[in-house]
Amino acid sequence: MARRHKRKGSAPLETKTNAMWGGRFAGGPSAAMSEINVSIDVDKRLWREDIAGSRAHAAMLADAGILSRADATAIARGLDAVARELEAGTFPFSAALEDIHMNVEARLEAKIGAPARRLHTARSRNDQVATDFRLWLRAALDALDGALAALMAALAEKAEAHAATVMPGFTHLQTAQPVTFGHHCLAYVEMLSRDRGRLADARARLNESPLGAAALAGTSFPIDRTATAKALGFARPMANSLDAVSARDFALEALAALAILQSHLSRLAEELVVWSSAPFAFVRLSDAFSTGSSIMPQKRNPDAAELVRAKTGRVAGAFQALLTVMKGLPLAYSKDMQEDKALVFEAVDAAALSLAAMAGMIADLKVDEARMRAAAGAGYATATDLADFLVRALDMPFREAHHVTGRIVAEAEKRALALEDLPLEVMQAVEPRIAKEVFRVLGPEASVRSRTSFGGTAPKNVARAAKSWRTRLAKEKGR
Amino acid sequence: MARRHKRKGSAPLETKTNAMWGGRFAGGPSAAMSEINVSIDVDKRLWREDIAGSRAHAAMLADAGILSRADATAIARGLDAVARELEAGTFPFSAALEDIHMNVEARLEAKIGAPARRLHTARSRNDQVATDFRLWLRAALDALDGALAALMAALAEKAEAHAATVMPGFTHLQTAQPVTFGHHCLAYVEMLSRDRGRLADARARLNESPLGAAALAGTSFPIDRTATAKALGFARPMANSLDAVSARDFALEALAALAILQSHLSRLAEELVVWSSAPFAFVRLSDAFSTGSSIMPQKRNPDAAELVRAKTGRVAGAFQALLTVMKGLPLAYSKDMQEDKALVFEAVDAAALSLAAMAGMIADLKVDEARMRAAAGAGYATATDLADFLVRALDMPFREAHHVTGRIVAEAEKRALALEDLPLEVMQAVEPRIAKEVFRVLGPEASVRSRTSFGGTAPKNVARAAKSWRTRLAKEKGR
Amino acid sequence: MARRHKRKGSAPLETKTNAMWGGRFAGGPSAAMSEINVSIDVDKRLWREDIAGSRAHAAMLADAGILSRADATAIARGLDAVARELEAGTFPFSAALEDIHMNVEARLEAKIGAPARRLHTARSRNDQVATDFRLWLRAALDALDGALAALMAALAEKAEAHAATVMPGFTHLQTAQPVTFGHHCLAYVEMLSRDRGRLADARARLNESPLGAAALAGTSFPIDRTATAKALGFARPMANSLDAVSARDFALEALAALAILQSHLSRLAEELVVWSSAPFAFVRLSDAFSTGSSIMPQKRNPDAAELVRAKTGRVAGAFQALLTVMKGLPLAYSKDMQEDKALVFEAVDAAALSLAAMAGMIADLKVDEARMRAAAGAGYATATDLADFLVRALDMPFREAHHVTGRIVAEAEKRALALEDLPLEVMQAVEPRIAKEVFRVLGPEASVRSRTSFGGTAPKNVARAAKSWRTRLAKEKGR
Amino acid sequence: MARRHKRKGSAPLETKTNAMWGGRFAGGPSAAMSEINVSIDVDKRLWREDIAGSRAHAAMLADAGILSRADATAIARGLDAVARELEAGTFPFSAALEDIHMNVEARLEAKIGAPARRLHTARSRNDQVATDFRLWLRAALDALDGALAALMAALAEKAEAHAATVMPGFTHLQTAQPVTFGHHCLAYVEMLSRDRGRLADARARLNESPLGAAALAGTSFPIDRTATAKALGFARPMANSLDAVSARDFALEALAALAILQSHLSRLAEELVVWSSAPFAFVRLSDAFSTGSSIMPQKRNPDAAELVRAKTGRVAGAFQALLTVMKGLPLAYSKDMQEDKALVFEAVDAAALSLAAMAGMIADLKVDEARMRAAAGAGYATATDLADFLVRALDMPFREAHHVTGRIVAEAEKRALALEDLPLEVMQAVEPRIAKEVFRVLGPEASVRSRTSFGGTAPKNVARAAKSWRTRLAKEKGR
Repeated sequence: MARRHKRKGSAPLETKTNAMWGGRFAGGPSAAMSEINVSIDVDKRLWREDIAGSRAHAAMLADAGILSRADATAIARGLDAVARELEAGTFPFSAALEDIHMNVEARLEAKIGAPARRLHTARSRNDQVATDFRLWLRAALDALDGALAALMAALAEKAEAHAATVMPGFTHLQTAQPVTFGHHCLAYVEMLSRDRGRLADARARLNESPLGAAALAGTSFPIDRTATAKALGFARPMANSLDAVSARDFALEALAALAILQSHLSRLAEELVVWSSAPFAFVRLSDAFSTGSSIMPQKRNPDAAELVRAKTGRVAGAFQALLTVMKGLPLAYSKDMQEDKALVFEAVDAAALSLAAMAGMIADLKVDEARMRAAAGAGYATATDLADFLVRALDMPFREAHHVTGRIVAEAEKRALALEDLPLEVMQAVEPRIAKEVFRVLGPEASVRSRTSFGGTAPKNVARAAKSWRTRLAKEKGR
Repeated sequence: MARRHKRKGSAPLETKTNAMWGGRFAGGPSAAMSEINVSIDVDKRLWREDIAGSRAHAAMLADAGILSRADATAIARGLDAVARELEAGTFPFSAALEDIHMNVEARLEAKIGAPARRLHTARSRNDQVATDFRLWLRAALDALDGALAALMAALAEKAEAHAATVMPGFTHLQTAQPVTFGHHCLAYVEMLSRDRGRLADARARLNESPLGAAALAGTSFPIDRTATAKALGFARPMANSLDAVSARDFALEALAALAILQSHLSRLAEELVVWSSAPFAFVRLSDAFSTGSSIMPQKRNPDAAELVRAKTGRVAGAFQALLTVMKGLPLAYSKDMQEDKALVFEAVDAAALSLAAMAGMIADLKVDEARMRAAAGAGYATATDLADFLVRALDMPFREAHHVTGRIVAEAEKRALALEDLPLEVMQAVEPRIAKEVFRVLGPEASVRSRTSFGGTAPKNVARAAKSWRTRLAKEKGR
Repeated sequence: MARRHKRKGSAPLETKTNAMWGGRFAGGPSAAMSEINVSIDVDKRLWREDIAGSRAHAAMLADAGILSRADATAIARGLDAVARELEAGTFPFSAALEDIHMNVEARLEAKIGAPARRLHTARSRNDQVATDFRLWLRAALDALDGALAALMAALAEKAEAHAATVMPGFTHLQTAQPVTFGHHCLAYVEMLSRDRGRLADARARLNESPLGAAALAGTSFPIDRTATAKALGFARPMANSLDAVSARDFALEALAALAILQSHLSRLAEELVVWSSAPFAFVRLSDAFSTGSSIMPQKRNPDAAELVRAKTGRVAGAFQALLTVMKGLPLAYSKDMQEDKALVFEAVDAAALSLAAMAGMIADLKVDEARMRAAAGAGYATATDLADFLVRALDMPFREAHHVTGRIVAEAEKRALALEDLPLEVMQAVEPRIAKEVFRVLGPEASVRSRTSFGGTAPKNVARAAKSWRTRLAKEKGR
Repeated sequence: MARRHKRKGSAPLETKTNAMWGGRFAGGPSAAMSEINVSIDVDKRLWREDIAGSRAHAAMLADAGILSRADATAIARGLDAVARELEAGTFPFSAALEDIHMNVEARLEAKIGAPARRLHTARSRNDQVATDFRLWLRAALDALDGALAALMAALAEKAEAHAATVMPGFTHLQTAQPVTFGHHCLAYVEMLSRDRGRLADARARLNESPLGAAALAGTSFPIDRTATAKALGFARPMANSLDAVSARDFALEALAALAILQSHLSRLAEELVVWSSAPFAFVRLSDAFSTGSSIMPQKRNPDAAELVRAKTGRVAGAFQALLTVMKGLPLAYSKDMQEDKALVFEAVDAAALSLAAMAGMIADLKVDEARMRAAAGAGYATATDLADFLVRALDMPFREAHHVTGRIVAEAEKRALALEDLPLEVMQAVEPRIAKEVFRVLGPEASVRSRTSFGGTAPKNVARAAKSWRTRLAKEKGR
């Protein structure tokens, strides 16, 4: 079992005791303990942030007179050297040192000796990991924000190009009323815009510094938490040391925002899958985002769309997993919380990939306007237009207009005719006051043109909104 | 099966066809269809919002000349009458009419006749239910915000009273360093404050009006969506009609925020359960929030705390459920989305109950200061203070101070003595330079007093922060 | 807030202390406590099981000499009278009595006086509720098993009727190879058959009696747990009293099985939605399982299918919720576990409704064979048949046959011809050895007929399997 | 972003087209597509199963005359050579070849040339991956079953050693009634035994062979699916080819069983954390399963227990994730399903680690019998014994005995005395008929001894049950 279930790439675990905390312990950890406890395989992704935090901490300790200038300088240079090794991929990771914090500190000591042993003054792994993790997530949210903007731009561009491309609007996947493809694209731009808002809110709320909370109670050293917060780009130090090391709501909030984002992507992905099926054939994905089949050479599979749709499960599962972990944990730090990073890393990776893949698919998407138009014209999709016409032209109450329309549709269905092809006298047999002006509202182009209410699908609405989004996103990118 | 699994209190379902849409349908719905399709048992909670939305819609239709003044007046009066019946509990709900929208409209027609049949002009159930649901959730978030503030006030009050009450600070539920009980309470105030922030962000993001999006494409009637938005307290109309009827991220965001809030409450609840266990006996819950046992008369069970802890599952499950529902749904409205309301209602109810119960428990909580102090003094909780002393007094590198401290703790453990009771010469045998000033840092009171770093547990820090929170919350309430 | 979020139908809560355990308590519960603590609104669904358990317990107490015959007889008669009230809906439920157990016992005492006070000997609410809940769930699983069998029978019947109805088989929703509609139906029969297996396994595993475990430790009374187990149809008494009152894995297992079942139903529901869309139009749902639209009279919405699909979220959420509740709960009973019943009730109701609705939809389903056949013939769905022909006829290695086929498909695509309409010489230009026998494999009917491997889609395979299932299910039902 | 979020260890992705399906495609995949589509990093764990499946398939093809003997022999030898490379870690994985199936087949071709191109006859990646995955999961379940048995044996051994060790039994974490530590251990043995049952049921249900279902429809080659099923240890071939490639309920069922198992482990882990806290101090974890602190040298943190508790989130999240993935997927294979393996691998790894760590913790656990006994004697834990005595000795109805006991407990509480130290006359002042025999039931040892009902905590019950489990598990292991 052990061998078969070993995580890929994990080196054999060294079993010698971690020199950092083991001074008093007689026995070493068991193999199972090592494997469940060691986090370096996961948390080494935090190396940049760990070094940045140590740099800020050491500088502050020197400014506060807790560390000598000489030691601070040695530490700063040593951290640079360690960073170079990490960047180059030559850093000698050790599982016996458990995590990125210990690995970096031990390596620093190997490089500069004694001063390294003063770095951890007025600090603990509890505030250190919270600091690293917030910094990492902040950068990840910034990167995701950019990826969201790029996808929105791709959609806005498609929307502008197809502001007047008529397609069936669906409810229950039944043809309901004609809309334009551009309008449909902009619905996603709106959703994604709210997703950006959620990421921005999460970023603002997490951007407080835990550094200096130490193990859980603060410290008696005269540290300056505002200085380290500022050095690391945090808005302020967190106000309560227990909270600083105990809180993971920042990670949960980010995961929830990503799960909601994925739910939006999954809807668009579903549509791409359905629209590229043979009976719809509304769109064609580019070769770059399709795959073939090992046995069916004619297939053009929308794999990328399916995988984006599937990642929703992964991200939602990560939120649920971390929430389950945090449920009922007493303050302050508990080791359960070590599970947080793998879950967040996976979710961020999944969302980043999904956004990139979706942006590529949308940019490359070929739209079959003729198929869309034909489908929009079928299925009595302008029945509402007829009902609205009856209300306007005949001052018929809406509910009666609806019933009259229903009877006319039944006549058309009986004759297998589209509404616009139904003879006037058939309509008049149902409602004698209907005049030939009715034909002005029965075509899908007329239908979409008429829907000029704010936010409605009228092409001029869509063109204006698409242009506005495109301009706004371009301007933002230019900044 | 049917009989046994029938939902409580559900009246036998009428099987006649819903007159609103059934004009064209030959057969009526099956019993299973009725039971799965009818939502009135759930969505009748939206009645206030549904009537408010109809009032705003009718007034706007009249202003826009789509409805006559006389009809608008009749509708307004009729809606008042319907509202009175609903308020009084005399409204005749009908399952055959499926949902609250149809029930209200049919009742309105029964009261005022023909004008009622004009109310649904330029509107659809799709934008109507989205409007109602956003209004309901907005009010619920406001109420929850107040409940959060009340719990924070109860915690801040306890924190001020116990700013200097020493207790053990735990990590891994192991005694780590002394903190004050007030400090611990304020950690939760900070968490809950972020929860309020999340609710406020969710509220701001959802506060846009879908009304006028109609079925999905907007309308050809010259409606004024800004007017209805304003009348209903929305910040603006939603910018895309497809998005307006398809989006449920507002509900997901609120559920996620509530799930995170519950995770915070579950942590406090866990602590109340553990702290009121016999071996801890740190606190005593009031009779009002405890129960006895049918067979063990001596029991004082922290039922309310356990139930608050359990509600985390309910709320997190609701988020997960709705996310699963929304995954992969094509635009625009699909009937799947009807599941949204029951889930949100349950989660809001659970959170409201949890907040009320927790505020009561905290307000009533009796703290056993002697037990807390005794536990804080045991377990070598001031070992870090000793290590920090060695750093400061002897300029010892932190990592060496840590090892020296470890050896001294081992000596104390061997002798079964507290650190403050360990003879100086024993310490000096480990490290000769230790002077008697060391005893100044070995007591828990001294320990907490010394942690004056920003956010640290020093009683004066805690008192100041508690007062600041209490004042702020009182001022806010006074507004 | 309180008023608005009150659960429907909940009577005002009486605040007087529960007489059963409150003897020693000074203050009564607060309103929030009552609302969060009282479970009678939910657990009254257990009344039949509660009375059955009390009957068995009293009879056993009498047989063991712990209760006098006269008392046992009085209790038995009293329970009958209480049951009649519950059946008739005249039972006076009291929220002050918290739950169904206390309500029944208090009512029994009101009816028969003193003997009722002896009923709870050698029993506790902890084992009582575990017993009731297992009995209820056992009956629910039996009912669901029947509902599953009914759906399978409906599918098998459709499969038999359409054993040779050709439709496109999809992968990635792309046309892949022709299959028969009957084959597709039988895939679901297989899935549902495994779902039945899971329910059966869950039933067998839960069918052990907790009764007599008392609060948690067993009892000193000479009870006969085997007798009560037998009287209630349990296979045996549970072997460990702590486990008996602490375990909820039986509920989790049932919820997991139902969640998996719903995932199967959601796939079929998705297909019904897609297949009844206008571009597919493979099937038509009956009026009984469709709805219309308030504004679009031509719509025939597959609401029932969408709701079945959505219930997956509800059921999966219930599993997740209960798992979150149970995570980290120390033994034995904790009040958190009270959340179990609402979650299970909701999930069972959702699954029962979903099965009934799906069975109705399938039974009524109209299949458009011409549309299916046309779609199966398009899209080069027999490309694999061509490749397999090349392997067989020309002894070409599979991978080469695949490439040759790809080139031929490209030629057909270029000419916009179906494979069966492509001139032989075009194929021979790619591979000269292809003879005219190739046309025997290029039609969809030939394709499905040829797939005679075990489990393959050949109509004779399908007919045989469908008949076998139909017979088996009919026989089972006859028993 | 790309660089920072790259998964650890992933080599730069080759962008040349996969030669297996790309024959007809003009453009290569984009970088985002490659990254989201390529699964080799994950599915290479299936290599043993992939090779076993190919071996069985090739042998069957030869027996059926579809492949020549010479080709079959070449393939078998080639697969051996490929397996040796994989075992040795020298296999040249290629991301351009996407997955383990293509990697193995391409490597085989590199080794043996033309015959390799005939291996994929009458097979598809769809049935191939389903076969591999079922084989892998079957082996994993077997390994987990062994790990479960080992943990049960460790618990049974502890139970036998502590069959009479008195501890407080808790409900609501309040002292309820005395139990024995052995009894408590056996409660977990029972739970884990049901977990084994669930794994065994999942194993039996998944043990059917999809091989030969080909892409989705079966094949026209005269294959023998029973032969390959038998060669691979499957009970039978799956009966429906569409189901064979579409089903993932086998993975969901295993994940659900593991999630439930983890919930049991999380309860035991919680108890270990609480019990090893200073106020309880019931147990002491060995050095091998504890860690120290970087700043608090006295700490002995139950990290392994906390991590086991946390893994519940991971495993439950995996179930939820896969269920979300599968929700609403039409038949047959969709690329979404590629997410299944990473989730199952993670969950199996987490469970395997959790079981190993827990078995180690239990085996090493030191129990402080004196602390347990003292806690069991406090808190009026024998109040129920007093109530039961009143029922037996005075024929008092249980409910009255309960109230009398409550009043006596109140007297004892007032005097701060244990029940066994309360003077007889104080009891008699409450109930004159109480005689001095009452003292026989008031001590915790007497209490546990008296609970001899089946499954009760009486030491002789516990000793017998522990021995029975230990023997049974040892015998099973011996087999």
